Amino acid sequence: MKRVANRHPASSGWPASAADSHLPPASQRHWEPTLETMDPEERLAIVDAKLRAQVRYAYDHSLFYQEKWDAAGVRPEDIRGVADLRRLPLLHKEELRAEQAAHPPFGRYLCVRREDVARIHGTSGTTGRPTAFAISRSDWQRIATSQARIMWSAGIRPHDTVFLGSFFGLYMGGWGALIGTERLGATAFPFGAGVSGHTQQAVQWLLEMHPTAFYGTPSYALRIAEVAHDSGIDPREFGLRILFFSGEPGAGIPSTKRLIEETFGGICIDTGSMAEMTPWMTNAECEHRQGMHMWEDIVYTELLDPETEEPVRPGEIGVPVYTHLERESQPMIRLWSGDLSRHTTEPCPCGRTYARLPEGLIGRADDMLIVRGENVYPSAIEEAIRSAGCHGEFRVIVTRKGSLDELTVRVECDPEDDDVQLRRTVATRLKTKIGVRAEVEVVKAGSLERTEFKSRRVEDRRDIARQMAAVRGDKHEGQPGASEKEAV
Amino acid sequence: MKRVANRHPASSGWPASAADSHLPPASQRHWEPTLETMDPEERLAIVDAKLRAQVRYAYDHSLFYQEKWDAAGVRPEDIRGVADLRRLPLLHKEELRAEQAAHPPFGRYLCVRREDVARIHGTSGTTGRPTAFAISRSDWQRIATSQARIMWSAGIRPHDTVFLGSFFGLYMGGWGALIGTERLGATAFPFGAGVSGHTQQAVQWLLEMHPTAFYGTPSYALRIAEVAHDSGIDPREFGLRILFFSGEPGAGIPSTKRLIEETFGGICIDTGSMAEMTPWMTNAECEHRQGMHMWEDIVYTELLDPETEEPVRPGEIGVPVYTHLERESQPMIRLWSGDLSRHTTEPCPCGRTYARLPEGLIGRADDMLIVRGENVYPSAIEEAIRSAGCHGEFRVIVTRKGSLDELTVRVECDPEDDDVQLRRTVATRLKTKIGVRAEVEVVKAGSLERTEFKSRRVEDRRDIARQMAAVRGDKHEGQPGASEKEAV
Repeated sequence: MKRVANRHPASSGWPASAADSHLPPASQRHWEPTLETMDPEERLAIVDAKLRAQVRYAYDHSLFYQEKWDAAGVRPEDIRGVADLRRLPLLHKEELRAEQAAHPPFGRYLCVRREDVARIHGTSGTTGRPTAFAISRSDWQRIATSQARIMWSAGIRPHDTVFLGSFFGLYMGGWGALIGTERLGATAFPFGAGVSGHTQQAVQWLLEMHPTAFYGTPSYALRIAEVAHDSGIDPREFGLRILFFSGEPGAGIPSTKRLIEETFGGICIDTGSMAEMTPWMTNAECEHRQGMHMWEDIVYTELLDPETEEPVRPGEIGVPVYTHLERESQPMIRLWSGDLSRHTTEPCPCGRTYARLPEGLIGRADDMLIVRGENVYPSAIEEAIRSAGCHGEFRVIVTRKGSLDELTVRVECDPEDDDVQLRRTVATRLKTKIGVRAEVEVVKAGSLERTEFKSRRVEDRRDIARQMAAVRGDKHEGQPGASEKEAV
Repeated sequence: MKRVANRHPASSGWPASAADSHLPPASQRHWEPTLETMDPEERLAIVDAKLRAQVRYAYDHSLFYQEKWDAAGVRPEDIRGVADLRRLPLLHKEELRAEQAAHPPFGRYLCVRREDVARIHGTSGTTGRPTAFAISRSDWQRIATSQARIMWSAGIRPHDTVFLGSFFGLYMGGWGALIGTERLGATAFPFGAGVSGHTQQAVQWLLEMHPTAFYGTPSYALRIAEVAHDSGIDPREFGLRILFFSGEPGAGIPSTKRLIEETFGGICIDTGSMAEMTPWMTNAECEHRQGMHMWEDIVYTELLDPETEEPVRPGEIGVPVYTHLERESQPMIRLWSGDLSRHTTEPCPCGRTYARLPEGLIGRADDMLIVRGENVYPSAIEEAIRSAGCHGEFRVIVTRKGSLDELTVRVECDPEDDDVQLRRTVATRLKTKIGVRAEVEVVKAGSLERTEFKSRRVEDRRDIARQMAAVRGDKHEGQPGASEKEAV
């Protein structure tokens, strides 16, 4: 057994001081102008230095990483920069769960003493062992600074009031947005979510307080809009300038983004990676909404081919694989997300030189449905439905009749709309978008069950789906009554 | 209209610096030994000085207080100390609501600029206009320090892990406990509450993480114990050393306190005043549980006769009337609580010289039932029921038959208990405790609806009650699905 040191290497100046109190003037566009707009090649030197310190730290402080990397025959000193990252083995969530089961409660990748842990969070583990997160005091402060810096890029400033419409509990999402708000010096209005009958009150408080920013899930924002409309209130009266989201792909889906922007009259910002990767906002759109920037000097993201695990080129489908660059409590090195995305290095009007994910996270590899041999992402179905003008809830049901897959999409129809016409439009859009013919059912507006959190919209009733879920055993994590994944 | 200055008088050294980072060694019994154990007469000089600064500040920064005190013919300089406090008019919650309605959203008693507000909270106002709380950045930090200092007196130390089982939203309770935990340097485990199906998970996480302290409402703690027992788990296995509570009177009721201590094997600490008075823990028991100390150098509390509004002597029933001593955002000066209590100045084994409320908050003046001419407090009914060995949920129903009030108490009976015997015991205890004969109904264990928050246990079905409620119009405030009062 190797020696596990108690402190990180002080000589390297890593990690950054947690006491950082930098705050730019409100008129300034970037929180760290030089770092954010510099030549990516130059910035790589900074990323490489942080990566070396992080890898060395993880190895020195964690028997988990020691065993894992020793077994792979790689030494921390072999990793001189991101170009060497591929020499380290990938990390999967199943490994984290197994490690915590064997070494409860936090696994041997907790690199600080228990008394240095400021916060305990976790996944709900409704169908399996939950994962526990332990975050040290100084990590917590650095996370706040990172989230504030990224929220700044969405246009949030100290004079803003941020309405936080998410459940505060084990789930990391709301807390990340809250501490970012606090660190940025804005007013936090932590309304919460998840209690029944709460949405009507949300509408009243939004009207009364006129917060300028909103955080939550896209489905909760749309639910609030629905309740407002039912009371004869136009959600534009709230006066929201910026709505930022995580936990669901919706905010990155063009037609949902458009729907939210038209409904509220503010800009719709997509953010989020994974709870394990907190500060989870290192994937985040700037105010120009041209896809999420990858803030690579906080968390370094590789995009790998789902099959070969080799880096993909811009425009190709890849799985984001995340590496913390400044985490002392539970650093994640090469965490396989299971999501899918495409990246671009084209310039963004904001001037930041971080590569972007123009389509956001397209879908999770394990959310993907294979219908009659075609890969179908729920997010693509949502895009088709929204673009046909359906603003309500929807459901996707996959069944098998004999050897043939059947795809049924159930949408809600506003009273003033024509059922038949709507059914036809949605069917056409679906065929174009996903390449598969779907049966479209139109139901009355408001008749499908609402959630205030991530929607549970896809139901795969085929035997094969049940078998796959049983084998995987790792789906359906997240917040109770809230989300099914630990994505934030 | 008077000039409203923007900053508080800097010369006076008031309020204390928000950046206070004092933390005693874990072995030290008192956070501020000198201040907490000094002769109360001597301490009064400190309280008086703070009061003068607070009153002057409120007058200079708030048109609301200017108008109110001018109308009463009293000037800030008339208030040289607590002995003069009675010259200032009392403040009632209805006034705050009316002021916020006239000057939305915060009323003219918000004494800081909107951009200095760090947090927005509020009551739910399910049956009337909600009250909005705005708390400035430096108040928020001072509140954290006060809560930490008081939690220290309950025995909580930096090595503790605090499980926070309360809803995080508008409600102030959970946030106060959270920031106290953070300021004290303990580990915060903000589990939350209020989502259905959550309690089973709470049991699992308590078993897995072994937090050493618990915060929530007494009824939620007992609910967790029930769910644990149902799964064959003894709540003592959680290893909780300290359970501290607010939001309900239960933790101050001797038999409920005993029940909680026997169930969990940890000490049961009663705390709490009102959300408006945050830091709401300035009423709090120390680890000796001899009634709540009134931390008079943070919030000064008078106890006034409910009718004459004159100070009461130790042992006499009085209404706590609270005055902030260090609040820059929304200072409350002489806020009438509507609660009832009795105080004592007898020494406490902890050495603190703060007067105590040995019976806690006995009940709210407006919760009191008048049954056949007798004053009956729901807390006294709870005491009688618990002392008869009933650990489950209960209900109190008051009806009128002709000209006669009927009091019905419905309790749950464990399968191993004898219905008839239990009915008799409860009836006898009730008669002794409240002086009124009650009809006792015994129902099956688990058959009464549970809440994860403040219990809604009293139902007054008499016309007079409905009329009174309509006239008052000010009851039933608090957290949605959570509490009915803004007490924390």
